[in-house]
Amino acid sequence: MEENKEQLVLIDGEIMPLEAAYVDANDRAFSFGDGVFEITPVYNGRCFALLPHMNNLFDSIIKIKIPGVYMIEELVEYHENLLAATGLKDCEIYTQISRGSGAYDLAYPKMSVPHLTMYAVPVDRAALAEKREKGVVLCTYEDKRWEYCDVNTTNRLPEVMAKEKATIGRYYDALFVRDGKITETTEASFFVYKDGILWTHPENNHIHKNITRRLLKERLAVDMDLQIMERPFTVEFAQKAEEAFICGPRCEFLPVTKIDRGFINGGKTGELVYELQKAFESYVGMECPKK
Amino acid sequence: MEENKEQLVLIDGEIMPLEAAYVDANDRAFSFGDGVFEITPVYNGRCFALLPHMNNLFDSIIKIKIPGVYMIEELVEYHENLLAATGLKDCEIYTQISRGSGAYDLAYPKMSVPHLTMYAVPVDRAALAEKREKGVVLCTYEDKRWEYCDVNTTNRLPEVMAKEKATIGRYYDALFVRDGKITETTEASFFVYKDGILWTHPENNHIHKNITRRLLKERLAVDMDLQIMERPFTVEFAQKAEEAFICGPRCEFLPVTKIDRGFINGGKTGELVYELQKAFESYVGMECPKK
Repeated sequence: MEENKEQLVLIDGEIMPLEAAYVDANDRAFSFGDGVFEITPVYNGRCFALLPHMNNLFDSIIKIKIPGVYMIEELVEYHENLLAATGLKDCEIYTQISRGSGAYDLAYPKMSVPHLTMYAVPVDRAALAEKREKGVVLCTYEDKRWEYCDVNTTNRLPEVMAKEKATIGRYYDALFVRDGKITETTEASFFVYKDGILWTHPENNHIHKNITRRLLKERLAVDMDLQIMERPFTVEFAQKAEEAFICGPRCEFLPVTKIDRGFINGGKTGELVYELQKAFESYVGMECPKK
Repeated sequence: MEENKEQLVLIDGEIMPLEAAYVDANDRAFSFGDGVFEITPVYNGRCFALLPHMNNLFDSIIKIKIPGVYMIEELVEYHENLLAATGLKDCEIYTQISRGSGAYDLAYPKMSVPHLTMYAVPVDRAALAEKREKGVVLCTYEDKRWEYCDVNTTNRLPEVMAKEKATIGRYYDALFVRDGKITETTEASFFVYKDGILWTHPENNHIHKNITRRLLKERLAVDMDLQIMERPFTVEFAQKAEEAFICGPRCEFLPVTKIDRGFINGGKTGELVYELQKAFESYVGMECPKK
């Protein structure tokens, strides 16, 4: 893991140390969670699938009608600036856009200038590889989130609370279950493999838009001739599967060997997730070659 | 309405002009909505029902497990300091406590120091009295909020979006409807009066904890020998009521004369809400006498 000498933050285009980075006390993200975010993984100093990630961000911006101040081209440039300034090669870039200052009244201010906050956070992909060997364990958590989960907003308290429960119980993450059906974890999509079919929750307002999930659906599964069934299923169904895994921009592809007290495939990691991770890595290698 | 010469903010105990008030860019309220809030009305330079309001705040703090740094006595003192510094006599004091700095990882940081932000906002109670004469009009809005509405968190985007819809349509506020039943507006409790009974949504995880609602239930209704039925009901039921009104720390008691396109009581304001407002004012007069 690269050492994080000094955490840098980019605010409205300008890069500064975290210690000097402040936002207005009446910023609407601070008062109301009135903002959106996106996380883009970086390999070999290059952003992976940056345009799809930025399109995701703009979908959320449009859904909650934040005035369009930043253009994708600018955001691409800021990603590059932040990588150049931090010198980080393996990291994630967090991008957040709030509606701007003007709290207190709930309705959108007549005039507001959106605020951009970005930071690059080092990631330990060696630790991830270790987890991939052994698989990870999830705890279930009742999904009481609002019904706009497809908008990546900064209203993330339900996910904070779920992740905290997982952390306390020494689980890797929490698996949301809405009306008896698995939706996703706090940060990744959930899949099971059974009878030659990949099952996952349909992409609707109950799950986040996840670029890694889309890559799996539109590229990796096609190349590997895998059939995907997008239909909600129960924890019991998942526990009887041959394999289970999560995928997302932060965890890549990680086998899930246990949910609560129920092992999956006797607690062993499977072959398919291993193949998917290999295919993912080769895709990343093409998109983000070493400089 | 008193002139707001200069907006002052209290941050972690210290009072400063809004222009000089900043929060850490990695404050968890800014990234995740990981904070709670409360609004306390001020009459004649005195906070109304400050202890119940602060108890409400502490209930929310406990529910999302924010470390207990501030004591109620301190918060009471800060309210007084803020009133003294601003010189405001008729206002609302907004109090927000975030979990503190330490964003990026969803789980609670191992160590975090909660941040307190407070401001006093002048209110125009003469304009409120005008609205009371004519009554207000609400639009319905599907209640897709999370299922912890009883926690006053800063995850307020659903309310922001609902209020925005109301504002655009020139409604006073939006009325949330969950599974066909009215829950509350973005900032107040909703009541109807029919056959000598007051109806309102039960106080559960689908509505905010509202001190004015509690005052009505525990004091005003008792004094006026009014029966309250806490049971969810439909918009059609409300439209056929003899009277409808909202109550909350910001709006006091306001008659509702129309929901969407359906008038209530032919669009006329009722007698009961007038009586309740009178009783409320006399209660406020006792609690917050002129200095």
